[in-house]
Amino acid sequence: MPTSEQNEFSHGSVGVVHTKVVRFESLTLEGGETITPLEIAYETYGTLNEKKDNAILVCHALSGDAHAAGFHEGDKRPGWWDYYIGPGKAFDTNRYFIISSNVIGGCKGSSGPLTINGKNEKPFQSTFPFVSIGDMVNGQEKLISFFGIHKLFAVAGGSMGGMQALQWSVAYPDRLKNCIVMASSSEHSAQQIAFNEVGRQAILSDPNWNQGLYTQENRPSKGLALARMMGHITYLSDEMMREKFGRKPPKGNIQSTDFAVGSYLIYQGESFVDRFDANSYIYVTKALDHFSLGTGKELTKVLSKVRCRFLVVAYTSDWLYPPYQSEEIVKSLEVNAVPVSFVELNNPAGHDSFLLPSEQQDSILRDFLSSTDEGVFL
Amino acid sequence: MPTSEQNEFSHGSVGVVHTKVVRFESLTLEGGETITPLEIAYETYGTLNEKKDNAILVCHALSGDAHAAGFHEGDKRPGWWDYYIGPGKAFDTNRYFIISSNVIGGCKGSSGPLTINGKNEKPFQSTFPFVSIGDMVNGQEKLISFFGIHKLFAVAGGSMGGMQALQWSVAYPDRLKNCIVMASSSEHSAQQIAFNEVGRQAILSDPNWNQGLYTQENRPSKGLALARMMGHITYLSDEMMREKFGRKPPKGNIQSTDFAVGSYLIYQGESFVDRFDANSYIYVTKALDHFSLGTGKELTKVLSKVRCRFLVVAYTSDWLYPPYQSEEIVKSLEVNAVPVSFVELNNPAGHDSFLLPSEQQDSILRDFLSSTDEGVFL
Repeated sequence: MPTSEQNEFSHGSVGVVHTKVVRFESLTLEGGETITPLEIAYETYGTLNEKKDNAILVCHALSGDAHAAGFHEGDKRPGWWDYYIGPGKAFDTNRYFIISSNVIGGCKGSSGPLTINGKNEKPFQSTFPFVSIGDMVNGQEKLISFFGIHKLFAVAGGSMGGMQALQWSVAYPDRLKNCIVMASSSEHSAQQIAFNEVGRQAILSDPNWNQGLYTQENRPSKGLALARMMGHITYLSDEMMREKFGRKPPKGNIQSTDFAVGSYLIYQGESFVDRFDANSYIYVTKALDHFSLGTGKELTKVLSKVRCRFLVVAYTSDWLYPPYQSEEIVKSLEVNAVPVSFVELNNPAGHDSFLLPSEQQDSILRDFLSSTDEGVFL
Repeated sequence: MPTSEQNEFSHGSVGVVHTKVVRFESLTLEGGETITPLEIAYETYGTLNEKKDNAILVCHALSGDAHAAGFHEGDKRPGWWDYYIGPGKAFDTNRYFIISSNVIGGCKGSSGPLTINGKNEKPFQSTFPFVSIGDMVNGQEKLISFFGIHKLFAVAGGSMGGMQALQWSVAYPDRLKNCIVMASSSEHSAQQIAFNEVGRQAILSDPNWNQGLYTQENRPSKGLALARMMGHITYLSDEMMREKFGRKPPKGNIQSTDFAVGSYLIYQGESFVDRFDANSYIYVTKALDHFSLGTGKELTKVLSKVRCRFLVVAYTSDWLYPPYQSEEIVKSLEVNAVPVSFVELNNPAGHDSFLLPSEQQDSILRDFLSSTDEGVFL
C-alpha cells in the first residue's frame, strides 16, 4: 500500500487523477431504445500528440470503472490497472495517451441504472434499457471522436474488457491499429453463463430486490454480496487459494465461518456492495452473457472484417476464461491471415492474473506496442 | 425414465424398496456431545450370507440419502446409485448384501436437525450438535454391528461417500476388506471450502433463516435454492454444459433467465428445496469442510494404519474434486505398501460422473470386487 509520500507523482505513477464526465445528445442502442442524453465518465493519462495517433483505449471488466490508474484524492489504492499504466510502464504515459471510460449500463458515472431520469428526477434503476457490449463500444466511439481521434493506436482489455476490444475490431475496423485481448472470449460458454445466472438469481432473491426499484436505504445488498462472493471464487485459481488460505482458521469469528477463506470472501462481498449497484450487476452480466461473435466458422466469418493487429493473452490457471477460448479467437484470426501474437502465460493467479504484476506480461505488452507494423511480434 | 412395467423387479433392478430406521441408545460424538437416542435410516439390497462376510456398505454424498437403489413406491426415478447396484450389476445383489444408510446430521431419516427432540417435541434444527465425517462413520459402525457383521467385504462411495470410506479404513482398519474411494479427497482445499461457504452464506442471508430455527412454513428456501444452484455448477463439467445447453434460449420465460442453462439451474434449485433441509445442508457441508486426514507426510502417517485393499477412482473432467486429490491419496497408500488400484477415467460429466452409467467404471468396479486378495487388481 503506498504511503502518502507515494501518493504524489511517484516514479511510475500517474499520480492524483480525477474522473470527468462528458455529455452527448444521445445514443441509439442495438435493441432500438435511445439513451438521451448519453453520459460517459472517463479518465485520461498522458498527452494526446499533435497527430492524435498515440491514443490507447483501455476497457474495464465487470466490476471495474473509468479509474484505471493513479489515485483519487485520499485513496490508498490506485486504479485497477495501475501496475501497467503510468510513466515508464507498459502502457507508457510518456508515449501514449491512455483513455479509460466507464461502460454504459455501469454504475460509476456513465449512463446506467444510477443515472437520474430527467423525466421524474429519480434514478432509472431497472427502467434503464438493457445494453450490449456493442452499445458499450458505440458509447466509447463517441468519446474517441470527441477527442478528435480518428484511429486509436490500440484498444486493450481483459475479461469483459477483452470482449470490448474484440467488438471494436469488428464494429470499427478502421478506427484502431492494434487490439489487445486478455483472459477473454468471443462468447460465454454455458458454464460462464451459469455462474452469472446464479449471481443474478442471488440478487433477485434478495427481499429488497423489488423488481430493481429498491431504495438506497434498502438495497438488495445480501444478494449482491453473495453474487460477488461466488464470482470472486471464479476469479482465483485453486492453487492460489491453497497458498493464500489453505485450511487456515479465520482471524476472529465472523458469523459462522470456520476457515480464513470464508472470512475473506465475506469481506469481499461486503465491501463490494458499498461500491457497486445491484441493477448494474445484472445489466453488465447480461451484456456479458449475450455477447456473441460465435466460435469456429461463425467467428472466422465475423473476424474477416478486422483490419488491425492482435495480441491475445491467456492464462493457464484461468479456469473461468480458459485458454481454449483464446485459442478459438487466435485460430479464426489466423484463418483470416490477420497478424496475431498469442501467448499463454503461466501466472498462477487464475482469471485475475491480467490485473496483477508480472514481468512477463509487462514485457509482452511493451514489445507488442513498440513493434512496428512491418514486424509481427512473434 | 422407467415405465410402470419396469418398476416391478426389472432385469438389473432391485425393484421396490423401503427405507427402515433402527434405533440405538446413543452415540457420543467426537466433539463431546451425545445423541440419544441414535436413529439410523437404511436400506439393504441382496442377502447377507451365513458367514456374514459378503456385505458392502455404500456411502452417499452431500445431497444423497439411504435410498441408493431400486424404487420407492410411486417414484419414477430410482436411488442415486441404481446404475451400479442390483442383480447382475457391479454391486451385484445376487452376490453381495448392500447396505446403504443416511448420514447422521442428514435430513432423510437418520438423527439430524429434523429429528424430534424428545425434551420439547420439536425438531432439533440448529440445536442439533455439529457432526463430523468420523461421527457419521461411527454411526454406520453401529448399524453394521447390528447386522452382526464383523468385517465388511467393502465400503464404497463417491465424493463425501469416498471420505466416509477413507474414514472407515482409518477408524476401523480391521472391519473392512476393500475400500473404494471415488471422486474424493483426503481433505477439502480452500477452493472447495470457498464454494461451500458461499452456499452456507446464501442460507444464512435468507430472511427466513432465523438462526436455523425457521418454521416449516417459512423456510430459508431461496437461500437453499441458491446454494444448490451454485453447487450444481460445480458438479458439472464445462464440456458437458456446452453440449447440453450451449447458448440455447430457455423454454418459456422463467423469471429473467435468458438462457436454457439458467432455467435448468433454477429448476434444480427449486426442486432441491422440496427434498432437503437448510440446516442439514449447513451441517453436512461443515462436516465435509472439517474432514481432514491431511496431505503429504501427514496423510501418509494417517494411512499407515489401514489394513484393507483400495480402489481409487478419479475423473479427468472433475474440476471440483480434481484428480490431483486422488493422486495424493494413492501416493500415501503406496508409500505404506498398501495394495491400491488407481484409475483416472475420462468420463466427460465432471464431478457427477461417478453417479452416471459408464461401461468402463462398471467393469473396473466388478473386476476390483471379484479379484482375490492374492491378486492385486492392476
